[in-house]
Amino acid sequence: MKVAIAGSGAIGSRFGYMLHKAGNDVILIDKWPEHVNTIRSNGFTVDEDNKQHVVNIPIYYPNEVNDVVDVVFMFTKSMGLGDMLEDIKPILGPKTSVVSLLNGIGHEDVLKHYIPMENIFLGVTILTSHLEGPGHVAFSGAGTTEIQNFVHGESEAQMARNIVKMLDDAGLNTSYSEDVKFSIWRKACVNGAMNATCALLDCNLAEFAATNQSEPIIRSIVKEFVNIASQKGTQLDEGEMVQYILESARNIGSHYPSMHQDLVQNHRLTEVDFLNGAIARMASEDFNTTAPYNELTTRLIHAKEQVLATR
Amino acid sequence: MKVAIAGSGAIGSRFGYMLHKAGNDVILIDKWPEHVNTIRSNGFTVDEDNKQHVVNIPIYYPNEVNDVVDVVFMFTKSMGLGDMLEDIKPILGPKTSVVSLLNGIGHEDVLKHYIPMENIFLGVTILTSHLEGPGHVAFSGAGTTEIQNFVHGESEAQMARNIVKMLDDAGLNTSYSEDVKFSIWRKACVNGAMNATCALLDCNLAEFAATNQSEPIIRSIVKEFVNIASQKGTQLDEGEMVQYILESARNIGSHYPSMHQDLVQNHRLTEVDFLNGAIARMASEDFNTTAPYNELTTRLIHAKEQVLATR
Repeated sequence: MKVAIAGSGAIGSRFGYMLHKAGNDVILIDKWPEHVNTIRSNGFTVDEDNKQHVVNIPIYYPNEVNDVVDVVFMFTKSMGLGDMLEDIKPILGPKTSVVSLLNGIGHEDVLKHYIPMENIFLGVTILTSHLEGPGHVAFSGAGTTEIQNFVHGESEAQMARNIVKMLDDAGLNTSYSEDVKFSIWRKACVNGAMNATCALLDCNLAEFAATNQSEPIIRSIVKEFVNIASQKGTQLDEGEMVQYILESARNIGSHYPSMHQDLVQNHRLTEVDFLNGAIARMASEDFNTTAPYNELTTRLIHAKEQVLATR
Repeated sequence: MKVAIAGSGAIGSRFGYMLHKAGNDVILIDKWPEHVNTIRSNGFTVDEDNKQHVVNIPIYYPNEVNDVVDVVFMFTKSMGLGDMLEDIKPILGPKTSVVSLLNGIGHEDVLKHYIPMENIFLGVTILTSHLEGPGHVAFSGAGTTEIQNFVHGESEAQMARNIVKMLDDAGLNTSYSEDVKFSIWRKACVNGAMNATCALLDCNLAEFAATNQSEPIIRSIVKEFVNIASQKGTQLDEGEMVQYILESARNIGSHYPSMHQDLVQNHRLTEVDFLNGAIARMASEDFNTTAPYNELTTRLIHAKEQVLATR
């Protein structure tokens, strides 16, 4: 299949490389000049399970691509999703499937503006990957990915299964999900309860979990996620979520969530509007209520983005 | 009058020195060994309007004091109020007036455990002062202080006026307040809307005020202050408070609130339980409701206290 990776950062590169190696016709798309130039000049350096390969995969800037592809995988930052879709319109034919594996909720509202709903596929991956520098990705370890069609229908489900098979054949341990929205909400709830808090407190998961405030803070954020998810048709269990999040934080330990990296370490904008911010927005826009814990969390993160941007 | 200053930090020292200079029989009380030892060995160094004096004022540890005094001024940290009152019981006679000029709300609930209500006097001061080091205080500039009896009654009001006169005669520009609770709530609301936020965001007042999140964050915190104050019998105006706080923040500019100094700069416990924490506590304990913005703010500050304490 002809495949485009829209956003070729750490995780997009892992998908692109694996699909390329399995014989698919893959192109990478990215906006970072050093990354694009390095790959064009020297090839793409890939450390796969500590073995280094250099491969040639075509890479383009978003506004350079022209030929319609069969499948596009979206691996941008959440805030960049709309801009990327706008730029790559030439490769989106009437039958082009677009798969979003982005973290967070509310991406379908962006995708719907650019793509017929029957071409939208949503998924969750727990694979990890790390960009060592421009043109150089490193990854190891296993992890699952699940994907489902956004519109319920036989042909949509068949297309989802084709995409699943292509990924699975490429070694990207992927399955068809009967309820991907549950997985998306669940992951968003986990991230929403921890990421912004660790960024605000400038601490790692274990440090936060060790405070006597972590349980009530997590519970108040989770409660609002559970409420809005339920109104949107997805049932999460509050008690189970709180327990799982606390245990994960203790087990994962000294890891700094990506929002900490974006905000504290790199003074960059965060994806909070697709986690806590989505809950606050849906509460007020869709259900005429409030989600004060997620709202204040979102506002504090945005305030900190602005404070740090000026330094 | 025989006067004790319970807590002889920056502002307590200013009051103690001025009352001593005006001829009152003043003793200082403090727990900081370097401070006590320096004053005992070398006298108290006071920079008053840039002129330096060295004076001898007796200073004691809290557990050393014995003789009953006429008036005690409480200038501890909020968290240390109860401990100090416990320690200085020997100087609290049946007629000893106790004046609290501490920032924040809820101190009367602590005072009531140790002192007959008719001996309690509450006040607000906007004087400032700075401890240069152990045994060395510096201050300049003017500012008002207001004081009122806690229990309404003729003899209590008379005692309050006596205390006011003593302070005013000592050059501590003080007046009798007809509604000191309003002043206390108002100051607490100003501090509650700004101090914790600047500590969490690690920024000064002007930096916070410059973000597009400051107005909604301040408004949501103020709204809960106004609600609880009203239920406690004090009317604050939400619109006026928000306007005043934003303007103050812009005008005061590059100042870091004391909670930032305590938490971020010195990794010490903060007084948040007597600001935002008091609102959350009163909401749930006294009025069976919630104050989520103040509750989350309080929890984040406590979490950060714990994270920083371990570093």
